[in-house]
Amino acid sequence: MKLYDGGRAPNPRRVRIFLAEKGISVPLVPVDMGAMEHRGGAVAERNPLRRLPVLELDDGTVLCESVAICRYFEELHPEPALFGRGALGKAQVEMWQRRIEFNLYLPVSYAFRHIHPAMKEWEIPQVPEWGEVNKPKALDFLVLLDAELALREFAAGDEFSIADITGLVAIDFMKPARITVPDELTNVIRWHRALAARPSASA
Amino acid sequence: MKLYDGGRAPNPRRVRIFLAEKGISVPLVPVDMGAMEHRGGAVAERNPLRRLPVLELDDGTVLCESVAICRYFEELHPEPALFGRGALGKAQVEMWQRRIEFNLYLPVSYAFRHIHPAMKEWEIPQVPEWGEVNKPKALDFLVLLDAELALREFAAGDEFSIADITGLVAIDFMKPARITVPDELTNVIRWHRALAARPSASA
Repeated sequence: MKLYDGGRAPNPRRVRIFLAEKGISVPLVPVDMGAMEHRGGAVAERNPLRRLPVLELDDGTVLCESVAICRYFEELHPEPALFGRGALGKAQVEMWQRRIEFNLYLPVSYAFRHIHPAMKEWEIPQVPEWGEVNKPKALDFLVLLDAELALREFAAGDEFSIADITGLVAIDFMKPARITVPDELTNVIRWHRALAARPSASA
Repeated sequence: MKLYDGGRAPNPRRVRIFLAEKGISVPLVPVDMGAMEHRGGAVAERNPLRRLPVLELDDGTVLCESVAICRYFEELHPEPALFGRGALGKAQVEMWQRRIEFNLYLPVSYAFRHIHPAMKEWEIPQVPEWGEVNKPKALDFLVLLDAELALREFAAGDEFSIADITGLVAIDFMKPARITVPDELTNVIRWHRALAARPSASA
């Protein structure tokens, strides 16, 4: 088994954090995304969408999509449960994972990819107006999330989950996207600090 | 238990199709999205994102996000399995569910919401350029999907899954978004016809 990894990019980081939280070690194949290595060669052969990460099993089976790769490992190594426990717990993790993904991670990605000059060759065409529209969307969701995090320790409940991983990566991604967490969102700031202090954050 | 339902809108439809495939009947509370009823009242009280569908359990617990609601029912009623079987099967359904969602359903939604005049009060502000950029994205993905569907009956393998439900709803949503499946994508057309012919499609 090997994991084609993309270094600092947010999706590869999500999977590395997930594996670190599980205590699973998978051989990494580094791919230089800055040099666009994932647009051809081994990655493009394995993933027609030419994105990272890509997991290749020993029999050559390929799995793409960060959350799908994480779910594969969750099924093989159920503890600690990072996709929730029981019907309701699993649904709540899925709910918060998706809410954070669609209302924070995606808007932050759009703000970065459609505005940042370094993304000109990545996002063709850039639509700067779309990037700008997404900044307040991300901030609106953070207000909602702050109210939720006043009620509990983690995004989906009292246990750390994949929803927190997506949240950590999204908030860290706000820096290159040039969006700042407002000082008054003290619950979001407390939550982000706690996530960033876990050993997995540097995976 | 009751499901706040949004009629013809694509996300409520996904959950109704899922329930029909499972043979589960849940009391529906119709919400008139055309009259923006979901932006206030019972829906807004239960879902701060003011979106449908919303599932309310008998103890008042609220579940939002279509795929999270579906997963709740998958856990309670595992057969027929619509999220895949075994670690690899579950990961493959997740992979195709996400690929279809991010590369077809989302671009089609953007094309509809950012261009269609009827969406002016829904999508504020509309960014027509962003809508246009998404039409070729949807078509590019359909080419990739067509090659995959040449190899197997359903999106994620030989069994029907939630990835097919997302695909059916996305392709039907292309009509109001004014995007047409090209005639040469015969595998996509065969697949869509088969999905549309299932009794669940009219749920």
